[in-house]
Formats: sequence, structure tokens, C-alpha cells
Amino acid sequence: MFQAAEVGRTVPKADYKRELPELRTRLIEAQQQLRHSNRSVVIILEGVHGAGRGALANRLQEWLDPRGVETHALWDLSDEELQRPYYWRFWRRLPARGRITVLFGGWYQDLLTRGGEGKLGVNELDTALTQARHFEEMLAADGTLFLKFWCHLPEKAQKKALKDQQHMPGEHYRYGHGKKACLKNREDLLRTAERAIRRTDTADAPWYLIESRDERYRDLTVGRTLAHALERHLAEERDGSVPRTSGAPDLPEAPSAQRTVLDGVDLERALEKKEYKQALNHHQDRLYRLIWQAYREKRSMILAFEGWDAAGKGGVIRRLIRGMDSRLYRVLPVAAPDSRERAHHYLWRFWWQLPRAGRMLIFDRSWYGRVLVERVEGLARQQEWKRAYQEINDFEEQLVDHGILLMKFWLHISADEQLARFKAREDTPYKRYKITEEDWRNRERWNDYRLAVNEMVFRTDTEYAPWELIPANDKRYARIEVLRRVCDRLEAMLDKG
Amino acid sequence: MFQAAEVGRTVPKADYKRELPELRTRLIEAQQQLRHSNRSVVIILEGVHGAGRGALANRLQEWLDPRGVETHALWDLSDEELQRPYYWRFWRRLPARGRITVLFGGWYQDLLTRGGEGKLGVNELDTALTQARHFEEMLAADGTLFLKFWCHLPEKAQKKALKDQQHMPGEHYRYGHGKKACLKNREDLLRTAERAIRRTDTADAPWYLIESRDERYRDLTVGRTLAHALERHLAEERDGSVPRTSGAPDLPEAPSAQRTVLDGVDLERALEKKEYKQALNHHQDRLYRLIWQAYREKRSMILAFEGWDAAGKGGVIRRLIRGMDSRLYRVLPVAAPDSRERAHHYLWRFWWQLPRAGRMLIFDRSWYGRVLVERVEGLARQQEWKRAYQEINDFEEQLVDHGILLMKFWLHISADEQLARFKAREDTPYKRYKITEEDWRNRERWNDYRLAVNEMVFRTDTEYAPWELIPANDKRYARIEVLRRVCDRLEAMLDKG
Repeated sequence: MFQAAEVGRTVPKADYKRELPELRTRLIEAQQQLRHSNRSVVIILEGVHGAGRGALANRLQEWLDPRGVETHALWDLSDEELQRPYYWRFWRRLPARGRITVLFGGWYQDLLTRGGEGKLGVNELDTALTQARHFEEMLAADGTLFLKFWCHLPEKAQKKALKDQQHMPGEHYRYGHGKKACLKNREDLLRTAERAIRRTDTADAPWYLIESRDERYRDLTVGRTLAHALERHLAEERDGSVPRTSGAPDLPEAPSAQRTVLDGVDLERALEKKEYKQALNHHQDRLYRLIWQAYREKRSMILAFEGWDAAGKGGVIRRLIRGMDSRLYRVLPVAAPDSRERAHHYLWRFWWQLPRAGRMLIFDRSWYGRVLVERVEGLARQQEWKRAYQEINDFEEQLVDHGILLMKFWLHISADEQLARFKAREDTPYKRYKITEEDWRNRERWNDYRLAVNEMVFRTDTEYAPWELIPANDKRYARIEVLRRVCDRLEAMLDKG
Repeated sequence: MFQAAEVGRTVPKADYKRELPELRTRLIEAQQQLRHSNRSVVIILEGVHGAGRGALANRLQEWLDPRGVETHALWDLSDEELQRPYYWRFWRRLPARGRITVLFGGWYQDLLTRGGEGKLGVNELDTALTQARHFEEMLAADGTLFLKFWCHLPEKAQKKALKDQQHMPGEHYRYGHGKKACLKNREDLLRTAERAIRRTDTADAPWYLIESRDERYRDLTVGRTLAHALERHLAEERDGSVPRTSGAPDLPEAPSAQRTVLDGVDLERALEKKEYKQALNHHQDRLYRLIWQAYREKRSMILAFEGWDAAGKGGVIRRLIRGMDSRLYRVLPVAAPDSRERAHHYLWRFWWQLPRAGRMLIFDRSWYGRVLVERVEGLARQQEWKRAYQEINDFEEQLVDHGILLMKFWLHISADEQLARFKAREDTPYKRYKITEEDWRNRERWNDYRLAVNEMVFRTDTEYAPWELIPANDKRYARIEVLRRVCDRLEAMLDKG
């Protein structure tokens, strides 16, 4: 999940200065309208320690009309609060209609602190998250707009940020322990946060992942996302339609702010032919042994392949199965659903195909079509593909909880490489069938797909089923890399028993 | 919760014969329309063993066109099912668009069985219920209509039903154990069921509580509820609006089918004056001591009084506080919200008032206004009062989890008694201020209120905060009964520490 906030997004100073005046005007205008509406706004700032939530809150106070905004940091429980049910401390701070409240952490803070310290079991966490979700649903139904921001830093950047902060007073209050503990607990905190975000990322109270290394990017993105949500929410109130807010943050216009996880994939990776042959033999032998072992131990495996047109999915899959016994696997190409499939929920056909114990199932394209082609081409309505992220996470969690090894691959190539491959296909008679009008059309939507992939990775890259982004400009490299990763994961699973 | 299904509803044979033909026509017509729609229907039959779910399922098959209905009893997991994630067994049985599936227990069966055997912790149960809820939400968003029926029997009736059944073959499969265990586990089962119903009773997949002592009532009510839900759902599909189904079962027309929990309240209860005086002194002394003890032990208490106009709430409250130290309690009359309160969620003003540790708070009318006066008078929209039941349950659960003693009273009088009291008020100069035009208007809605009270008791009568229905035709009896119950509960709580 968090790799989508480690892609190096920035906003240069000049762009910041250019974009800011318009944003501030939009914010003030939206706030004016909010004042006379039936809506209220709750902004929750969460994130890793050192990501600058304090500075961000100050910025929001500066940009908005301060008479309509309150900011609350919830530190120790007061004795008044201790004497009442836990949520009393939040109820008393809820904004009235027309007003905005910024909460540091809100009802997530205590959970994340305890989760980060390893003091919270999964069931207890889930129970508390369900409560949080119901609380938000209740208020959203009554007109409250929620925006929840997770301010993220990669590990190195966090270390540096904490070091730079050392002279700030009052810092030791946060989370109730020191900087060393923050770093030591980072992994547990992020694991808890991933689960919390996944369980409470709803249409009415979405989470936004904000890369916070560059202050200008962080502040501008949060500001734009807030302005955009306010504007849509208020417009929808006027139209009488159900208020929905966007699921992805609203990016600044600077090109450097629009990097995606795909920009971090090193497309220079390549393999020499000789090296490739050796590695291919080696890993195919490994896979052959491992697959039979998995069969004997009744462990199943599901691989899902996604990627750009002409990225080489077919070639990778052929290299995978070449070493395998055909009784142990199936390859399922996923195209548009047939009439029987359309008579059911879109996940039904994937459930239907789930393998028996000890088998491998390979999907050439998968359930992610919902949030890729169906989203970009408008085949699914916005509310359909938006709720699909959570549906997919639930689906995959059930697979993994059942003991199935699930791996999902995105084969990445550059736009130039795709063009070269398309042309080659047109020029080679026996490859011509592979290229259609549709491929050229999809190519025109390259940028839409890029952003859809980025959001997909943010929302569905989970601890139990991470995305594998594979550099595939060099076909040999991609094939070996996939084979190797499959063998490694399978081996690790079988070793653990 | 289940007391609302122990009120003795019946349908005489003649009424049954009169009502049936129309119902069967409606069902067949709705099913015809369903076939050509984008909707599918899942009916879940749950309930206590012996309530006749089998006979009910057979009846539904008989009434509907069997080509469009499938019924599945999910007993042991097959080896095919064991090899896949748990929900696979449900996915494979989901109806296609246009079709109906009847499931015995569905995804609740295993939970209830384990809960009934005391083998399921609260957190684990909640996690599983959250999963069930998300599963239903996902499918409902895709067009599936859910109807979940809890078929209920009072304990005695269950015993008798199980005895009568003894020669039916195959019975021992259900729940995997015998009849004795069913009765022995009844309490644990109902506790688990209450929690399950509460957590998964949503607008998209409502639970209906069906009293099942009288077969004709049971079958007719389920049939009517199904027909009504289908008709609304299909009409709403045509209109393009969001499908919502009714939250209460659709009752047969026979008057004996429309009894409510209030009909079970024995209004003949009365006290002689002398007995009353003695009891009053006795319990007021008790209360005085108990209140100070609660203060010292920092235990709070909240009492909520609801009831018919002129039922005597004020008089009861005066008798309660007469013995108390005024530093320890507050009485809050609840009227229409002021402008500040209207700027917040309707529960906000009650949260705001929560007492500090060791205090007592008495509400003269309460948050139940949402599902009583606001419902009946149309002051809240249907979706608002419908979701209020769950919001109220969540609210009360938080109070009780925090250690607050919560008691809620409905003071019940007959319509005749109310009329007598209204007239007496008009005739007595110093009581005349108590009677207004509004009281007379409310009186005309007596039947609407009756049904609203019945649904309120079904949906908010919980193990942790049960409704106390107090016979109040005799004022003396009502006052003593409330005092006594408050003292008893307080004493029990303080004894437990």
C-alpha cells in the first residue's frame, strides 16, 4: 500500500507559487458556501511520525477562514473524558453544520499507537475498526464530509525528519514515546495502519495517501483534495444527489507531482541470452519440484497477470508452465464476461474457478479489470469501480486466509517500447492477429491507465497480497524475474509448512 | 429482542383461507417481473430449532414458481468445499439475476451453532459478522435483495415442538446434535443470535423476526413480507431509485395477527394505598443508600422514560428523586431540539449530557423520539428513523460497555385510561396546562404508535439494555414497580462490583 507514497513526487517552488493563489481562492469560496449548507467537515490527519502533520494543520488554518475551523490534538484523556464512554471525546469536538474540524489522529490514533507497540490483537483491532466505520457512516449519513489523510514518509526520509526535528518543544507528547521507538515500531505501525485504512476506506469517508517528503507537494495536494471534495459535496447538495467524494487525492499540476509507482520501476534491467538460458533452466527445474511438493502438501497457488498491452504476459506464462505437469495447473484467459457471468456479481466467475487443494491457477488478466479497463473505458460506473477495491481486498484476504498463495504481477513497459512492439506485430504476418484497433485506442489512454494503476497499487497492495511490479522492456529479464519470484514465494511457503 | 416475537400472534383458519389467494397471486406476479429484472433474491431462514423452517421452506416452494427458486440446506462441508475458502460454498449457490435462492442459515448457521455451544468469543464473532455484512453489502449493491427471517418460539413452545417432531427422519442432522442440547443451549444461542441480528440488520439486508407458534401466521407473514419486498424492490428498479426494503414484517390482516408486545402487559396490576405507602418508603430508603454507594464507587446510571401521553412519567420521576440528594442527579426533559442541537447529529445532545462518574441522569423522553414521534409524525425521513435503531444500539452499547447502568422504561396505559386522564386534566384547573391540542392529535395515531413501539422493542431490546414495559393504568403500581426495578438493578450492579 505504502509503496504508492514512495514515488518521489515533488512540486518545485515556482509551480507552487503559480498554483497557490487559485487554490486559496477555491478554498475560501467553498468554505463560504459550506457555512450556509447542511454539511460539516471532519479532516483527520494521520501518518508516520515526522511527516509534518503539525505544519500541515497550520497551513490549513492559514488557508481557510480560521473562524470556521477548529483544530484538535487529542493527547492524554482528561479525567472528564475518562469518566465517560471513549467516543465522548470525539462527540464533544464534532463540528456543527457549516464548520470544519481538523483532528490529529481522531479515533485512529489510539489504535495505531497500540498496534505500533504490538499491543493489539487482530480481532480486537477489527472490532474497534468496525466501530469507527459505523461512527463515520452514521455521521456521513447526517451530512458530515470526512477526509482522512495518511501522511507518509519512506524509512530513510523519516529518520532524517526526526533528526531535524530534535529541537522542537512538545514533540515528546506524540505517541507518548521517543523517536527511537517510532522507528523501531515503524513496521508494526504500518501493518496496523494498512489494516485500518483497508477496513475503513469507504465512499463516505475515504483515506488519501499523501507522500510527505516534499512539503509543497504535501500541502498543495491536501489543499486541492479538500477543495475538490468540498466543491463536489456542495454541488451535490444543491443537486440533491447522494454525496460522494473522490477516492484519489487531487494532484497538483506540476508534472513532478504526477509521478506514479510505475515511474519507480527500473526499465533498464536486462539479461544476456546466455545468462537467460541458464536461469530459465534453473528456475524451471525448481518450479517443477516445488509444484509437485505443493500438490503433495495440498497447497494451492493463484497467479494473476496484468500489464500493458504487448507487455509480454503470454510469453511469461508460457515460460512458467513449460516446466509443469499439465494435470496440476490451469491457465484462464479473462475476457469480457459471457451472459451467464453477467447474470452474477463480477467476482462470481473468479470464485467459481477457485482451484482445489494443491493446484495452480494462472489468470491472464484478472478481477483487476474492474479497476483498470472497466474504469478507464467507463464500462463500470464510478461507484462500481470505487467499491471494487474493498471487494477485491476482501476476496484476496479470504484466499490467503485459506492458505492459498496469491501473487499478482504488473508487467511494465515504456510507451516507446509498446509502440515498437505494436509495429513489429503489424510487420510480422504470424503476429498480426495479436494487434487490434482496440490496442491502439487503449494506447491513447496511457495516462489514464497510469493513474488507475497507481490507485490500484495504493488500494490493493496489501501485506498478504503485494503487487509485483516487473520491468518488462527486456522480455528475458521479465520472464526470469517472474519465475524466480514465484519459486521463492512458493519455496518460502512450503518451508514454513 | 425476542420478547417481540412472544406476543401470541395467530391467524385463524378462515382468515388464512381468505387472505391466501391474493398473496399467491402477488407472489407469482412479482416473481414473473423478477425474472426479467436485474435483481436476484436471497432468503435466509434462521431461528430456533423446532420453529418449522423446513415446513416454511416447503410452503415457499409451493407458493412460488419452482422453476425460479432453489432451496439449499448447508450441512456438512464437502471435501470440495473444505479445499476452498469458506465463502465458496455460498458463492456457488448464489442466484443468477431473475432467480431466488432460499438458504437454511446461510453464513449465519455455523456462527450460531458455535455461539450456541459457547465456543465463540465476542471478538471472533464480531469479525465474522463484519465479514457477513460486507458480503451482503457487496451483493446488495450489485442488485441482490436479501430477506433474513428469524423464526422464533418461546421456550415452552419450543419444547413442545421438539417433542412432537420426534418421529421425523433426518432431524438429527441439524446443528449436529440432539434436541436436549438445543434446549440446553437455547440461552447461548439467543444471545449469539441477538448480537448477530443487531450487527447485520441493515437497510439492504434486514432481519425480520417471525413469531412461529402459529403456522398460519408464520407462513402468511413471511409470504407477505416477501411479496411486499419484491414489489417495492422491482418498482424502485423501474423508477431508478435506490432499493430499500421495509424493516418490519408485513402483517396479515387478521386482527389476531397484529398483537404487539404491549398487548402482553397486564394492565390489571394495582396496589392498595396502604401497601403503596409502605413500599414507597421502603424503596425510597433503599434508593437513597444505593445512590450514595454508587457515587462512592463512581458508577453512573442513566434512566430513560418513554410512554403514552398522560401515562404518568412525571409522577414516577418525582417519586424516584424524592429520596435522592439533588447533587447526585439531574432530570432532563427532552423536547424538540433547539437550533444548536439541530446543527448536529440527533444523538449529539444526548452524548453531550452524559454524566460524570457516580451521577444519575434521568431523561423524561429520550433519543427514542427518533423512532416514535419523529417516525409517526413524519418528522424524520424513513431512511433516518430506520437507521436510528442501529445507531441507538451502538450508542447504548457504548454506555453499558463503559460501566454505566442504563434502564429504559415504557409506561403503558390503555386507550380508555388515557381518555379518562385527558378529561380529568381538562376538568381540573391546575392540571389544564398539561393537556394540549397535540395530545389529542397523538391519540388519533394510537395504532401507529403501537406498531412503532413494537418495532422499537424488537430492534432495541438488548441483553445489555432491555426494555422495561410497565403497566401504568394504576399509578401507584407503576411508581413502585419502577422504583423497585431501579433499586434491584442498582443493587445487583454494585454487588457485582
